[in-house]
Amino acid sequence: MLAGPSDPSRPTLGIIAGGGAIPVTVAAAARAEGRPVVIFAIRGEAEHTVQDFPHHWVRWGEIGRLFDLLVREKVSDLVIAGSVSRPDFSAIRVDLGAILSLPRILALMVGGDDTVLKGVVRFFEDRGYAVIGAHTVAPELVATVGQLGRITPSATQTVDVGKGFEAARVLGSLDIGQAVVAVGGRVVGVEGVEGTDELVARIANLRERGRLKWSGRDGVLVKAAKPQQDLRVDMPTIGPKTIAAVAAAGLAGIAVEAGRVMIVDRTATVAAADAARLFLVAEEKDLAAPDMDPIEESAP
Amino acid sequence: MLAGPSDPSRPTLGIIAGGGAIPVTVAAAARAEGRPVVIFAIRGEAEHTVQDFPHHWVRWGEIGRLFDLLVREKVSDLVIAGSVSRPDFSAIRVDLGAILSLPRILALMVGGDDTVLKGVVRFFEDRGYAVIGAHTVAPELVATVGQLGRITPSATQTVDVGKGFEAARVLGSLDIGQAVVAVGGRVVGVEGVEGTDELVARIANLRERGRLKWSGRDGVLVKAAKPQQDLRVDMPTIGPKTIAAVAAAGLAGIAVEAGRVMIVDRTATVAAADAARLFLVAEEKDLAAPDMDPIEESAP
Repeated sequence: MLAGPSDPSRPTLGIIAGGGAIPVTVAAAARAEGRPVVIFAIRGEAEHTVQDFPHHWVRWGEIGRLFDLLVREKVSDLVIAGSVSRPDFSAIRVDLGAILSLPRILALMVGGDDTVLKGVVRFFEDRGYAVIGAHTVAPELVATVGQLGRITPSATQTVDVGKGFEAARVLGSLDIGQAVVAVGGRVVGVEGVEGTDELVARIANLRERGRLKWSGRDGVLVKAAKPQQDLRVDMPTIGPKTIAAVAAAGLAGIAVEAGRVMIVDRTATVAAADAARLFLVAEEKDLAAPDMDPIEESAP
Repeated sequence: MLAGPSDPSRPTLGIIAGGGAIPVTVAAAARAEGRPVVIFAIRGEAEHTVQDFPHHWVRWGEIGRLFDLLVREKVSDLVIAGSVSRPDFSAIRVDLGAILSLPRILALMVGGDDTVLKGVVRFFEDRGYAVIGAHTVAPELVATVGQLGRITPSATQTVDVGKGFEAARVLGSLDIGQAVVAVGGRVVGVEGVEGTDELVARIANLRERGRLKWSGRDGVLVKAAKPQQDLRVDMPTIGPKTIAAVAAAGLAGIAVEAGRVMIVDRTATVAAADAARLFLVAEEKDLAAPDMDPIEESAP
């Protein structure tokens, strides 16, 4: 374990880390401002770069051990960040804590994704932890307003962006999905529970089969947060993989809601967009009523 | 050719027939009321049952010949009905009429589905034909209000039906899609340009992969017309194949918008729903403003 310089009088930030770069970005931001940080890295999910910070590896199902470690490390605030694959339940080593929590865990598993996340948050909150957003520790993760790369959308692509945000707004208000694809002035694909990756793959497939036609690069992936989304643990995210998928689908760019969508590894993402000649823009949409915004609720 | 008893003083109804049972249903309805009818059956698309009526086989691309036949048969009103696969353009025999119409045809092909249909309608209207809806000749094709089979949706399934119609209404108002799947009180899938069959297949796939979970049969496919949809040539349709797909996806039933969704072969469809123990209901939704309803415009 490497410990950064930190102020032991400040409460320790715990990071429960899934895959990808976000947990380490959060840890680096905490360390940069002198806050003690410990990562609880989920084995098989978290990146090995977590080892640059104080950390413990925990397995799926080691809930009792996780809570022991949280107490031992004097954690007060928790960030839950990073991607998780669906755990292989047959391989899970279930400890006593998990068995004691089993009815609650089963209840979480039968719900939808949002229900699971709400349940996970409440699970930690009921045990006295404050769950905070990765972006409150590392605000640089959040998309800022404006054109983020070198490519500017054309006039017709700007129309597609507007159509996309219009559709995303109503889909969000119905708690359906957070992404749509618009091309040629109409919305051609909508994300349900399948997620953004599968939406973009579907568009690529429809184009290959001639069900969607356009010449050259055109159209846009629009991604926005749902008004009722808990941005502490479930902020919509794009990254270099999104750029690659959108380019492969023949789309011309990506538009995200400024302030409510995270960009994983912004430098690499913008560079990839420029290299692929995709536009990347963020617009402030105020899709959520202020009193519904979980950032407001959880910010200190 | 077999000719039914008909009143030669009445204007001849022409039916441009793609695949499925609808063209023949329309022809039978016209014949039943003594109206002369001729089917122009697209080769490779139309069913061979068209041969029970006066008919001509035409190939994709034989546009000049089609217009000659329409004149020779003294057709005044046209129904364009039935499914079409994407034509294999390399196999099309293009006649002089098609070559003369080529710029117009190419313009139709680059547009989206709705644009193509609007273009096809205008193409015939510009040449003096009145394009009328299959359901105005055969009103029995249209779903009537109420429970159509033996199975009644449960209370929670009724909630899903309501959620589905709510989503379908806003999706329709944005001209996105005409079908959604709702289960467990939330919308989990939304139709874009891929169509209802692929939406239902996607839900089946998400369930197989454990991304969607529910026990037994649950959830509903909701299908409604978009407010601006031209119901003369593009009314949403369900049939026995929809029943089979919905059953395979583990859904509990289907809800359609009464008056604005067609049921192909209603007897077989209801029997298939009963056999699969799926509910099948139609609700009046008034999703379209009356002055936007193309039925009103096209009815005599």
